[in-house]
Amino acid sequence: MREFGPAHGVLRLLLDGQPRTRAELIDLSGLGRSTVTVRLEELLAAGFVVPSGEAASSGGRPPARFAFNPSARLVLAADVGATHLSVALTDLSGTVLGSTTAALNIAEGPETVLAALTTTGRALLEDARRSDADLAGIGVGLPGPVEHATGRPNHPPIMPGWDSYDVVGRLTNEFGSPVLVDNDVNLMALGEHAAQYSDVEHLLFVKVATGIGAGLVTGGQLHRGAQGAAGDIGHIQSPGHTELCRCGNTGCLEAVASGAAIATQLRAAGLDATSSQDVVELVRAGNTTATHSVRQAGREIGTVLAACVSLINPSVLVIGGSLAQAGDHLLAGIREAIYARSLPLATTELKVVPSRIGQQAAVQGAAAMVLQHTLGF
Amino acid sequence: MREFGPAHGVLRLLLDGQPRTRAELIDLSGLGRSTVTVRLEELLAAGFVVPSGEAASSGGRPPARFAFNPSARLVLAADVGATHLSVALTDLSGTVLGSTTAALNIAEGPETVLAALTTTGRALLEDARRSDADLAGIGVGLPGPVEHATGRPNHPPIMPGWDSYDVVGRLTNEFGSPVLVDNDVNLMALGEHAAQYSDVEHLLFVKVATGIGAGLVTGGQLHRGAQGAAGDIGHIQSPGHTELCRCGNTGCLEAVASGAAIATQLRAAGLDATSSQDVVELVRAGNTTATHSVRQAGREIGTVLAACVSLINPSVLVIGGSLAQAGDHLLAGIREAIYARSLPLATTELKVVPSRIGQQAAVQGAAAMVLQHTLGF
Repeated sequence: MREFGPAHGVLRLLLDGQPRTRAELIDLSGLGRSTVTVRLEELLAAGFVVPSGEAASSGGRPPARFAFNPSARLVLAADVGATHLSVALTDLSGTVLGSTTAALNIAEGPETVLAALTTTGRALLEDARRSDADLAGIGVGLPGPVEHATGRPNHPPIMPGWDSYDVVGRLTNEFGSPVLVDNDVNLMALGEHAAQYSDVEHLLFVKVATGIGAGLVTGGQLHRGAQGAAGDIGHIQSPGHTELCRCGNTGCLEAVASGAAIATQLRAAGLDATSSQDVVELVRAGNTTATHSVRQAGREIGTVLAACVSLINPSVLVIGGSLAQAGDHLLAGIREAIYARSLPLATTELKVVPSRIGQQAAVQGAAAMVLQHTLGF
Repeated sequence: MREFGPAHGVLRLLLDGQPRTRAELIDLSGLGRSTVTVRLEELLAAGFVVPSGEAASSGGRPPARFAFNPSARLVLAADVGATHLSVALTDLSGTVLGSTTAALNIAEGPETVLAALTTTGRALLEDARRSDADLAGIGVGLPGPVEHATGRPNHPPIMPGWDSYDVVGRLTNEFGSPVLVDNDVNLMALGEHAAQYSDVEHLLFVKVATGIGAGLVTGGQLHRGAQGAAGDIGHIQSPGHTELCRCGNTGCLEAVASGAAIATQLRAAGLDATSSQDVVELVRAGNTTATHSVRQAGREIGTVLAACVSLINPSVLVIGGSLAQAGDHLLAGIREAIYARSLPLATTELKVVPSRIGQQAAVQGAAAMVLQHTLGF
């Protein structure tokens, strides 16, 4: 599968779905006639572009028009969660052709999980009557730090057996197409941005679930940072706290305000809660202790996010992850602390909103990552 | 003065100083012959490009070569500080042709300060035997929040009379060339990046002086944020502190660890200190109370910077501003807190370094801002 790269101006001009003539492509791109001709031939040969009827002509043979062909290739997108595996098959416009979600514990290890991903992916391809050779690429989100350049998990705390595992090599051997791996929160930010806020320059996506993490879009692009570690806000110190965190430090936001931390607090108060989901159910059932804890967690998260807002001045702050399903209590606490601790200029037009695509954010982000890589935008 | 904009591939190809033939420019840019010819004519007419000898030829008339002409236009760059005005005149390669720094209190108001800037700029132009018409643009740094799109100060706390003042209009009327305005810390980040770290993607510049602020470069570009308020770290809460800040909030980093805050602490301890500079002099004189205070301020700053490092994962963190001149004590405190509070992955290759260009950072950044705007890179 060849990739066309970020400089492929001809393909980029056709991504809006509008068919164009060679003359229009030359005019719009500023590229030379011979360059446009060579690139069109490459794109036609690969099937990414197809002839599309004829343009109106003032006489003589009408000029041919060319159009982007979104079904030329497909993308396999996977969201590997702590306890689930979601896989979707999309075309090159990001339209989902089929998807499936199943329970699967990531602690089963990479061989088991990636075998399940492979089986599921092949089943989706078969349902769509397509084959491995049709894949433009595979995007995978993992719930832990990933070195983006190599796609290897980097000391992931909740993924026993996955440290430095060659996810890319394993799946490339299987499918023969490019494989891109990133952490799930980066992909949620990318998915939410691509699906809902593509006109927004600076967006911060915060996942509040068993753990806490963030994905950052700046200048319209995912900001991964120097080691791909950007967005790791779960281990920022929560002022005034000393709870021991699984990272070995104390007072980390994740040890204070994550779904796991709240469940621990509620158990200490005599309630039956072991997971983020249990906390959400207690809140939905109207339990005031749980509601109070979630609201307070929102304030702690908001205090840390106020610092993030001061540093990067985003226009949209999206709150997602399982604990965001506890209704408005989490969001209210977050807003309270952000407005209390930020300078007016940075919050004048700031939107603090729940995720619009919820559980689909990571898998949509995985697809968006492969599409950006393949189509070069 | 016309600008050539970010899409001007022909000019960009010549910015490395290497003369090139028309054929080379067509080849390197992928642009059509007619496009390259039109753009070369525009550049030659404006003087940005000049004929530069002839290329080797295998026979017949040798092809002409074209070279970037950095002295075609000049840039006037100004750093308006709380108590000084620095102005420099540079060519289009950023080479400084002349510069001057004088004491001037920003509280004298925009009319007085901008009149001084105008007089100084004209004197530098005269020394270089050039005129207003030679200016490609004017870059101005101000010590407070600036709305970048309009160049107007936005409720700047230490700039009485400047709120919403039309700096751009005032200087455009005077010189007739484009005027760009930004806050001084953004320009320090830009200047340090352009002069010392142009190959670094993600850099955070922190100014510790009377106040505390930061400028952020991500993906090689200055990150201003949605309202141009990015980098405003002086009002992030310093954990465990309740000191009243001039912003009206309590416990802000600036109220705890700025030069002004340390001077206040030292006065309470019976020392004679009213400014950041007094603190630096006490440290240099070996006063242990002052040294202890600066080190502790470093730790408080480092605690906030640890959060910034977790969020954006930069490769370089530059510490500048007048308090950075207090030797290694500030830097040591900052490093101590960052390494104590960050996850290993984000700090493995992080450099925490003093500014290399010191007092020149803002004025160099002002020049870099205009050059990027004029030359479109």
